[in-house]
Amino acid sequence: MANDDLSLTFSALADPTRRAILSRLASGERTVGELAEPFDMTAPAITKHLKVLQRAGLIERGRKAQWRPCRLKAEPLKDASDWIAQYRKYWEESFDRLDGYLQELQAEGKKDDKQR
Amino acid sequence: MANDDLSLTFSALADPTRRAILSRLASGERTVGELAEPFDMTAPAITKHLKVLQRAGLIERGRKAQWRPCRLKAEPLKDASDWIAQYRKYWEESFDRLDGYLQELQAEGKKDDKQR
Repeated sequence: MANDDLSLTFSALADPTRRAILSRLASGERTVGELAEPFDMTAPAITKHLKVLQRAGLIERGRKAQWRPCRLKAEPLKDASDWIAQYRKYWEESFDRLDGYLQELQAEGKKDDKQR
Repeated sequence: MANDDLSLTFSALADPTRRAILSRLASGERTVGELAEPFDMTAPAITKHLKVLQRAGLIERGRKAQWRPCRLKAEPLKDASDWIAQYRKYWEESFDRLDGYLQELQAEGKKDDKQR
């Protein structure tokens, strides 16, 4: 597995449970127990996901001895967002082409209706 | 490995070689040989990366029998970008806090200079 920052970020995001954890942390810090609740998962399974997120710098664990709440750290998402943004014009062009094609189809349909 | 679209996209992006391949395809279609050139990699290694990108819908291969050029398909990147964008306010807040802290430090420094 690649170890550069951007790869660690994207890799951490490549799992629906980890994305759901980040989404829950967006509304405030949570303990591991609280994070595990909505998932049908054991604490060790959740802890494994938390470690991946932590390694990517997307969460941090508090230092309060037993409680150790998790907190969102969104900074690495900026670089990920900037990287993807380079491709915006390509997906916009492609959706524009699709729009154009659908409008053509619609225009053809109306012409056919009139000719009928 | 998770199989939902967003996980496949992020997983495909979690490798510097695959990101470099997408970046080269942004300037136009390329054969596998052309894509392999700048990397110190065998054709099978590149083919493996291409399969990951293809499975994520980020590239498509042409159908011209031998040549089969690769082409960028940027559409899945829109959903990835939209997902990350939800967190924009969190990283902006965090960079703002850092800015504020640095300005405070600077102000403290100036005050110290005057008192000297």
